[in-house]
Amino acid sequence: MKSFIEYSPSSDFPLENLPYGVFSTSTNPVKRIGVAIGSEILDLKAVAHLFTGKILAGKQDALRQEALNDFMALGRPAWTEARSTLQDLLSADNHTLQEPEIRSKVFVQQRDAVMHLPAKIGDYTDFYSSIHHATNVGTMFRGKESALMPNWKYLPVGYHGRASSVVVSGTPIRRPRGQTLPVDGAAPVYGPCRLMDFELEVAFFVGGPATRLGESIPAAKAYDHIFGMVTMNDWSARDIQKWEYVPLGPFTAKNLGTTISPWVVTMEALEPFKVPNMPQNPDPFPYLHHEGSCNFDIKLEVDIKGPQGVATTVTRSNYKFMYWTPQQQLAQHTVTGCNLNPGDLMASGTISGETVDSYGSMLELSWKGTKPVPLKDGTVRKFLQDGDEVSIKGFCVGENYRIGFGPCVGKLLPTNPE
Amino acid sequence: MKSFIEYSPSSDFPLENLPYGVFSTSTNPVKRIGVAIGSEILDLKAVAHLFTGKILAGKQDALRQEALNDFMALGRPAWTEARSTLQDLLSADNHTLQEPEIRSKVFVQQRDAVMHLPAKIGDYTDFYSSIHHATNVGTMFRGKESALMPNWKYLPVGYHGRASSVVVSGTPIRRPRGQTLPVDGAAPVYGPCRLMDFELEVAFFVGGPATRLGESIPAAKAYDHIFGMVTMNDWSARDIQKWEYVPLGPFTAKNLGTTISPWVVTMEALEPFKVPNMPQNPDPFPYLHHEGSCNFDIKLEVDIKGPQGVATTVTRSNYKFMYWTPQQQLAQHTVTGCNLNPGDLMASGTISGETVDSYGSMLELSWKGTKPVPLKDGTVRKFLQDGDEVSIKGFCVGENYRIGFGPCVGKLLPTNPE
Repeated sequence: MKSFIEYSPSSDFPLENLPYGVFSTSTNPVKRIGVAIGSEILDLKAVAHLFTGKILAGKQDALRQEALNDFMALGRPAWTEARSTLQDLLSADNHTLQEPEIRSKVFVQQRDAVMHLPAKIGDYTDFYSSIHHATNVGTMFRGKESALMPNWKYLPVGYHGRASSVVVSGTPIRRPRGQTLPVDGAAPVYGPCRLMDFELEVAFFVGGPATRLGESIPAAKAYDHIFGMVTMNDWSARDIQKWEYVPLGPFTAKNLGTTISPWVVTMEALEPFKVPNMPQNPDPFPYLHHEGSCNFDIKLEVDIKGPQGVATTVTRSNYKFMYWTPQQQLAQHTVTGCNLNPGDLMASGTISGETVDSYGSMLELSWKGTKPVPLKDGTVRKFLQDGDEVSIKGFCVGENYRIGFGPCVGKLLPTNPE
Repeated sequence: MKSFIEYSPSSDFPLENLPYGVFSTSTNPVKRIGVAIGSEILDLKAVAHLFTGKILAGKQDALRQEALNDFMALGRPAWTEARSTLQDLLSADNHTLQEPEIRSKVFVQQRDAVMHLPAKIGDYTDFYSSIHHATNVGTMFRGKESALMPNWKYLPVGYHGRASSVVVSGTPIRRPRGQTLPVDGAAPVYGPCRLMDFELEVAFFVGGPATRLGESIPAAKAYDHIFGMVTMNDWSARDIQKWEYVPLGPFTAKNLGTTISPWVVTMEALEPFKVPNMPQNPDPFPYLHHEGSCNFDIKLEVDIKGPQGVATTVTRSNYKFMYWTPQQQLAQHTVTGCNLNPGDLMASGTISGETVDSYGSMLELSWKGTKPVPLKDGTVRKFLQDGDEVSIKGFCVGENYRIGFGPCVGKLLPTNPE
């Protein structure tokens, strides 16, 4: 598979990837849908008329929008047709877009683009589906014997998050103020968060037509509602969370900002990297059953770059450590009849591996602040410090190519003056 | 204050109320903004050009939308100007809309209208701010001594809910299926919910311009972000909730449907019914302080009408039983920097009074199913039965008028066949 756009084998965005995003440029501030290829972006608004396949010929307007929701709504047959059209248009053999005059009009350099949220996120949900993460957190707070709650292996535990505070890579995040309880049994205090953390996550965008309230989607039919994936940093104020979350769950500790990568990698691009689902015991209820795998070998890394500008990779994890699959998450989400909309976002929860160098949060890496994590600049971290830039990388390694997720970066700023 | 539209003193919608909603008719299926007056609706799309005050003269388009979000975004000075224009246009002394030909074009009978959600709800949040409700639930599940969690009197506890499943009055709700744990320590089972419940709530819509991520709104400045209120039934699957909610809060037990009344009663209409805030001890942190009252004498009732068609009022509660005010809820929501959008919805949580006839849920009224609640049709309820129609009424009683919230009704249908 060869494109006329040149890129190195280490590019995040070869012809095998073709993730969708929304961008604008200083010369054209209108938000529009693009596809990443090498270091460039193909402007789909400019080439929408070339999508002349059976389905998209009458739906080209979905590619001319300021967000991906309409395209996500079209469903898998339209997505695969679009992918096939894109691979054709971008292939070395196809000259449609290679004329210099056309090429200069329909391609934009990624470095010249401003990326935006890929979709209007109607609702955002966060799951808790990594068994090593849930076990680590449970062990810290309740001891090894009762680390996993009784429900954990029966259903994908999740909670509704805040959609408005999901932001695109590059958006700075402020250290929040809030209430915490530094001394158990004493009165709480109000002030800047002292235990700021990242959470290494991967999230999927819901696709397909909106479903109706009262309609459940069993896991066996859930794949058609999964459009594609992004990497995510679910910034967390641990000390605020610990005080506020009983009994209704995390609230203001999480709605201070959630960073996602701007490029949505499609399930079609991830297909070659399927690995077996994690064995599940007990066997889940039938509504959570599905054929085949919906687990993926996506390598995940988190870098922290302190104010000195030196980056340290503090963890290396993998999406394949997920216990519950996206299909099962979606089935659980709708089991009581919750309706879905294209553009809804569902996140994995923190993804930790089994070993201490693969944990997906500082809470786990520093084991509740008891084990300082050394950085290359000579400093150490238990939690995040002001000025730290946290960068999440996700990629699948193919034969002579890689499927990358692009940047998922955010810098922690000091609290606002009051 | 007298309108040329005639209505009785017991009407929900006198000239003192003027709530906003979104409606359509069979002859004109376009959704449009209306104001309820007596048994009629004034079509604001048809009269938008008459809003010629200082602010709205240049913003009439906000009244021509299919949802209230743009109007909500304008802020309090625009809202009070609109109210003043409406009271003028509808007064007996003003003949602008009284000509029969005009009148027939700009008014619609409420019985001929289909009501829709008043706003596009970006995010929905549910608080837990009634001290009697929190104490009742805590007593049931943890005993009297530790009924209130340690954080409860320090901050308005809340959680993010599901926006997509908020529906307008009249939408039927299906009894859901899900996992429950009938026997502690045994394996869970999957099947229809056995403990379906209502929750008597009042919610407010956020108004004013969208705020920025990282910006906190102290309670003292929160009032300008509160547009108006609706009544709400936060349908709850108690047995599903009990099994799923640890440790991240209610999830599928709540996203099966949340009913709101279609008419948004403005804070201006509620102003005469202000009552003192509930005394708070300990004194809250300064960010939760605000001058004056933001508590209201809103009488609340819940009727259950079983399949025989006879309605029984099962509880009489009041908004004034709230411990935390809407201003404090909004301040807590943004304390860590969560950004708000006009049209966001924030609910009170179940509102229970101190006495057993004022509890806001079947869970409390039947005390966990131990005390059957008698209905007028001779049957009893511990929780809801299929075919039950639950109707929430809210109203303020003024001198010779009342400020009503209109219907908040939903019928519980049996589970879908699988």
